[in-house]
Amino acid sequence: MSDRYRLGLDVAERLAADKLEHFVKSGVAEVAPDFARMVIEFAFGDIYSRDTLNLKTREMIAIAALATSGTAGPQLRVHVESAASAGITKREIVELFMQIALYAGFPAALNALADCHDLLTDDNCFAGACG
Amino acid sequence: MSDRYRLGLDVAERLAADKLEHFVKSGVAEVAPDFARMVIEFAFGDIYSRDTLNLKTREMIAIAALATSGTAGPQLRVHVESAASAGITKREIVELFMQIALYAGFPAALNALADCHDLLTDDNCFAGACG
Amino acid sequence: MSDRYRLGLDVAERLAADKLEHFVKSGVAEVAPDFARMVIEFAFGDIYSRDTLNLKTREMIAIAALATSGTAGPQLRVHVESAASAGITKREIVELFMQIALYAGFPAALNALADCHDLLTDDNCFAGACG
Amino acid sequence: MSDRYRLGLDVAERLAADKLEHFVKSGVAEVAPDFARMVIEFAFGDIYSRDTLNLKTREMIAIAALATSGTAGPQLRVHVESAASAGITKREIVELFMQIALYAGFPAALNALADCHDLLTDDNCFAGACG
Amino acid sequence: MSDRYRLGLDVAERLAADKLEHFVKSGVAEVAPDFARMVIEFAFGDIYSRDTLNLKTREMIAIAALATSGTAGPQLRVHVESAASAGITKREIVELFMQIALYAGFPAALNALADCHDLLTDDNCFAGACG
Amino acid sequence: MSDRYRLGLDVAERLAADKLEHFVKSGVAEVAPDFARMVIEFAFGDIYSRDTLNLKTREMIAIAALATSGTAGPQLRVHVESAASAGITKREIVELFMQIALYAGFPAALNALADCHDLLTDDNCFAGACG
Repeated sequence: MSDRYRLGLDVAERLAADKLEHFVKSGVAEVAPDFARMVIEFAFGDIYSRDTLNLKTREMIAIAALATSGTAGPQLRVHVESAASAGITKREIVELFMQIALYAGFPAALNALADCHDLLTDDNCFAGACG
Repeated sequence: MSDRYRLGLDVAERLAADKLEHFVKSGVAEVAPDFARMVIEFAFGDIYSRDTLNLKTREMIAIAALATSGTAGPQLRVHVESAASAGITKREIVELFMQIALYAGFPAALNALADCHDLLTDDNCFAGACG
Repeated sequence: MSDRYRLGLDVAERLAADKLEHFVKSGVAEVAPDFARMVIEFAFGDIYSRDTLNLKTREMIAIAALATSGTAGPQLRVHVESAASAGITKREIVELFMQIALYAGFPAALNALADCHDLLTDDNCFAGACG
Repeated sequence: MSDRYRLGLDVAERLAADKLEHFVKSGVAEVAPDFARMVIEFAFGDIYSRDTLNLKTREMIAIAALATSGTAGPQLRVHVESAASAGITKREIVELFMQIALYAGFPAALNALADCHDLLTDDNCFAGACG
Repeated sequence: MSDRYRLGLDVAERLAADKLEHFVKSGVAEVAPDFARMVIEFAFGDIYSRDTLNLKTREMIAIAALATSGTAGPQLRVHVESAASAGITKREIVELFMQIALYAGFPAALNALADCHDLLTDDNCFAGACG
Repeated sequence: MSDRYRLGLDVAERLAADKLEHFVKSGVAEVAPDFARMVIEFAFGDIYSRDTLNLKTREMIAIAALATSGTAGPQLRVHVESAASAGITKREIVELFMQIALYAGFPAALNALADCHDLLTDDNCFAGACG
């Protein structure tokens, strides 16, 4: 286990380790174990762990980028689920999705709201117990 | 002049009114005056003026979305120029672009850095005197 | 209820009010009521209601844009369902999708045909009674 | 010269043969002559020549698709230059670009307006003498 | 039946005729029979049949392009199913998807792996008996 | 200098070290030195150096992905310049771009041809002396 992997896991755990690890490792690890490791090492170990931006800001950036792309529903859900751990409220996420309509169009915003509908309405979700 | 337009202009001015107005009004106002007005009314009057997210967060969202899309170089530059007014440092923008590589690939991050290269190296830019 | 909202609802009703309103208001209104209102006000009240282009042309533009983007299946279906109200035939929509292959590739055209397959085969759909 | 090529050239000529042919044949024909031929044969011979949609509608679809994609500035210009031949006014094109903001975001609409700024302001362009 | 169609069918059959034909003809042929024919004629008859690139290389290009776009899951599956016929191993496809992360981001790579998960784990699939 | 960086440099040098390094290090290294290092470490050290795919195949994948995205002109040029080092001919690249039209539309293929026009016509380029 490389130092980068250990550091990546540590960051992922501060967010919502169970979900992130589950996501990254499940199907991916089965067919592409090296890639599952690289996601932890590079995304969390190399990038997220850097201290110029705090985790709350990083999660806002992640959610903005994933909602804009329009092709990353599963990843968007993972980061919205992790948002509470980073101190982001549901109202802030809804507001972010509204702003995304300016740059990526109304369908991108509406689809982001639909992709995360249960997470944004389930009262327990942001306390770590949802879906 | 509608209330929404007045409110939009007010928000735009808190960012970097000269640049935003210049951008929105110049060529656009010549061929599509109603659209130039709508950008101010809707983007700044209806969306940016809402108080759930502060201007710094809104600019981070804008920059993340525009860098992700990869087709919005001129708009990316406008928002990076406005970033200082919203309290964002150059180091934070560079860090944001690095994180974007995770979601949109390395070319998107490299092109965002190249599109804004002069703004991120010019010492005066973030004090309002660049470009 | 603003004049823009009233005007937007009026335009939406001329298309296929039940479906458009249902779409916009259902899940969206629950988590983002202000955004559901803005879609009606801006998309239908400000843009669609303008008279330079008639509703048939606007629906062709909407369907072309949504099929090109490839990430807006639900919105594409809503507009294809509304097409009959605007005087568009199924043959014209199929022909539009074929042309989209030129600009967005064959998968975009094939996926648009698949997304709307039931609407384009159900005889009653374009009379307002489908799905 | 295949029948499909002959038919494609004929359609292209009804639009703005000089510009379309010039565009397709110039640089492309030098490095990829078979591809230049296929564009005429397939895009104009096979698709555009079909009679379910008239040329005006086809050009509106082309312009909507190209503006939405955000990565087809040169092709967008060719089709906007051909629009007059198909009976489309400048006001209709500006209106189309405004509507595109709904589906593809404000930057896509603003960049389409900027890409075609000279074509939309030059009085002679739509009479076939611009550029 | 045109020569181009016959040639296209022949190429498609060398890949995995049953699946490709099934895909192209099923729903598509029902609502857009001319388009189903054009896909065979143009994609396979005109392009794939050319001998500058062999079928293995063409399938690698197809899979790279479809994984990058992020909006072509069904087409990606068809080409991954055809990969074995062209002499591509599962390990090569997994490796290709990992490389795609560089250009299109991690979500594009992860979603390609998820879209094809059963094909990449089912032992029989690459012998022509899966799905 | 990490092992991954050393390995990445080694791979980059087998392609066209001067161009790749120049590209990655120039403007990028000035404003984002850590990111320039990560590109070498991750893209070339971690991914390209793996032996499941040879360099020729990796360059075909890179060129296919970059042409498909339509927003990576500078990166596309770098990889086309490196293609000769990996044993790829100009005819193969032109053929690849033609195939990309199937998945990403004709504008993507035409723009890739235009972006690399000088590289594909300059006789010396593929011997390492162009641009």
